[in-house]
Amino acid sequence: MELNNNYKNLQTSYLFSTIAKKVLDYVNENPDKEVIRLGIGDVTKPLCKSVVEALKKASCEMGTQEGFHGYGPEQGYSFLKDEIQKYYYNRKINLKTQEIFISDGAKSDLGNILDIFSKNNKVLIPDPVYPVYVDTNIMDDREIIFLEANQENSFLPIPDKNLKADIAYICSPNNPTGATYNKEQLTTWVNWALENNAIILFDAAYESFVSEDNLPRSIYEIEGAKSCAIEFCSFSKTAGFTGTRCGYTIVPEDLSYGDLSPNKMWLRRQTTKFNGVPYIIQRGAQAVFSENGQKEILENINYYKKNALLIAQTLKKHNIWFTGGINSPYIWLKCPNNMESWEFFNFLLYNIALVGTPGCGFGKNGEGFFRLTSFNTYEATKEAMERLDNLLGDL
Amino acid sequence: MELNNNYKNLQTSYLFSTIAKKVLDYVNENPDKEVIRLGIGDVTKPLCKSVVEALKKASCEMGTQEGFHGYGPEQGYSFLKDEIQKYYYNRKINLKTQEIFISDGAKSDLGNILDIFSKNNKVLIPDPVYPVYVDTNIMDDREIIFLEANQENSFLPIPDKNLKADIAYICSPNNPTGATYNKEQLTTWVNWALENNAIILFDAAYESFVSEDNLPRSIYEIEGAKSCAIEFCSFSKTAGFTGTRCGYTIVPEDLSYGDLSPNKMWLRRQTTKFNGVPYIIQRGAQAVFSENGQKEILENINYYKKNALLIAQTLKKHNIWFTGGINSPYIWLKCPNNMESWEFFNFLLYNIALVGTPGCGFGKNGEGFFRLTSFNTYEATKEAMERLDNLLGDL
Repeated sequence: MELNNNYKNLQTSYLFSTIAKKVLDYVNENPDKEVIRLGIGDVTKPLCKSVVEALKKASCEMGTQEGFHGYGPEQGYSFLKDEIQKYYYNRKINLKTQEIFISDGAKSDLGNILDIFSKNNKVLIPDPVYPVYVDTNIMDDREIIFLEANQENSFLPIPDKNLKADIAYICSPNNPTGATYNKEQLTTWVNWALENNAIILFDAAYESFVSEDNLPRSIYEIEGAKSCAIEFCSFSKTAGFTGTRCGYTIVPEDLSYGDLSPNKMWLRRQTTKFNGVPYIIQRGAQAVFSENGQKEILENINYYKKNALLIAQTLKKHNIWFTGGINSPYIWLKCPNNMESWEFFNFLLYNIALVGTPGCGFGKNGEGFFRLTSFNTYEATKEAMERLDNLLGDL
Repeated sequence: MELNNNYKNLQTSYLFSTIAKKVLDYVNENPDKEVIRLGIGDVTKPLCKSVVEALKKASCEMGTQEGFHGYGPEQGYSFLKDEIQKYYYNRKINLKTQEIFISDGAKSDLGNILDIFSKNNKVLIPDPVYPVYVDTNIMDDREIIFLEANQENSFLPIPDKNLKADIAYICSPNNPTGATYNKEQLTTWVNWALENNAIILFDAAYESFVSEDNLPRSIYEIEGAKSCAIEFCSFSKTAGFTGTRCGYTIVPEDLSYGDLSPNKMWLRRQTTKFNGVPYIIQRGAQAVFSENGQKEILENINYYKKNALLIAQTLKKHNIWFTGGINSPYIWLKCPNNMESWEFFNFLLYNIALVGTPGCGFGKNGEGFFRLTSFNTYEATKEAMERLDNLLGDL
């Protein structure tokens, strides 16, 4: 018996465990200091009322003979797919319901989608990046080329016309940088994919944070994208579902490579290796689209956005270069005085008891950068920014 | 861009769609006849009270600041893993909590586990069989050899000492045959695996239906199994979770092949491609292990078992050979008068409006056999057996 030896090529990330250890040491040395964490990559506001009510109602149903649901369709219930179809339709994107697949989250599908691709494909991944794109391809031994994201291109890299790759990852608004592609940039991406017979895996997990009108929230706002892109989305950041687990993946029927259809292959993959998202959870996700649900989730998103704005304003005041913050819960900043990522981490921790995430943890181009997030309370964010304001004033 | 061409080798199963079409034709021709379905492969009783209460409570929690849960551990919450550990401990099996991985069901994990194995392994699969074992390996282009299950070995095949394979599937109690290995037989399997450096993927999804004392409910009741077997289990059939989605997989730390550890690899696979089972659902699963929960789920299991017994008794009366029914919700019978599977299907449908599943749909050795299930109501099962009794009496 032979195991998958590609796992030997995976690197263990010590990023978050190292942060935890450093913070613990600091707290032990400074028991009187109030540490504020702006490194959180997880939502903190509770599920909204409409969702909770729907979850409770569905739970009760499942306890009755008439309301009980056994195996559901692996690709999701129509009641939820119809809402997603409408959600896209309202943004002038026409999807067929059989192009929508309900999932337990974007992370699962971004990993599992690789099942339908040959191992021979060359993969294009921006650096810095959400580590899952890299690790899932290492597990399959695909050749990876990195696309340099940096201050010069505002962390929004675009492949050269002649760059050859088969599968390309785009995350916009980006994790970790918060940078968001505009229509023109995404059009260049789509044209590149069409010309190179490549497929784009578009991670739209943060689309609900897009505030500016001219910024696409879906790759399908770009002409031709249905012939070259799969889109992954999630209720995690939209409606605080990080622990509730529901998302969706769009695999257009127009995608066609030889005599195989990615849409039909993904359906086959999911019906073979997945049994669908819990009925109860799908009912909860459906409630996100109700009138009250939409109002309630927007309140939460706006709460986080207000925090992000506060961080952005503080950085602007001190002329610190950053991306994100407007269309994203993340702010990605250049460490002042050319500090390295960990140096700035220590600087913030030991001077103002503020915890963030060193950018170097997301790839080599993250060195010298730093991520702050808007997922703490308004009060804590405000306090943190007052401390930062003073500290930077002294610099 | 190249797709995974192995998908071209998958066969489309028309089994259940053909059944549906035949039944529809019959109903249209015979609108006055009451059709009884004993082909159902899904539970029909609602979730038990304790589980519903736990789901509702957890839903409410998620709507409060104090009770909200974001990202949980990918491998599952301790509160549920601890219960599973106790569940095994009560059967004299000691597991470490880090050997227990909470999943969204056995089907997902049985498919996804292949990620950690090389494509070069040779796979041993019994015939007839749950089609997922075959299809997931075709997707990866692994060489498959079939182990003949038939009336002669009571559909409980055991590999010859000299048979060479790397990965072997066992499903006991079996889907579709209901046949269940005893301790001696499983010991032979474990010894074969240990001698051949093979790994056993043990599907225990139906373990809670085991009634007879001498039959193992876990492969780990067999000495040496922790060095050669991964076990998959699920709340689907145990507690009616087919639409609620929760299961667990045991990957012992003792498993070791070269310098890679399947336990650590599976942890890495799950933390990279999975985000855990919803908090709410894990709370529901935890309630299965409460005193009331155990009482309530046993009532449901006994309800199905009573149906199975009724079917078994009817077949016995007419000297029809069968397996299952005692330790399984499934009854696998030899079609009387040497009828072929579809012939018997039509015979039952057109004579007594009874629907079952032709055995040939589960592999070539299923030809001439037929599956009945205990998942309908007691009243319908009783009525069906009265009709069958009369029909077989006339044969």
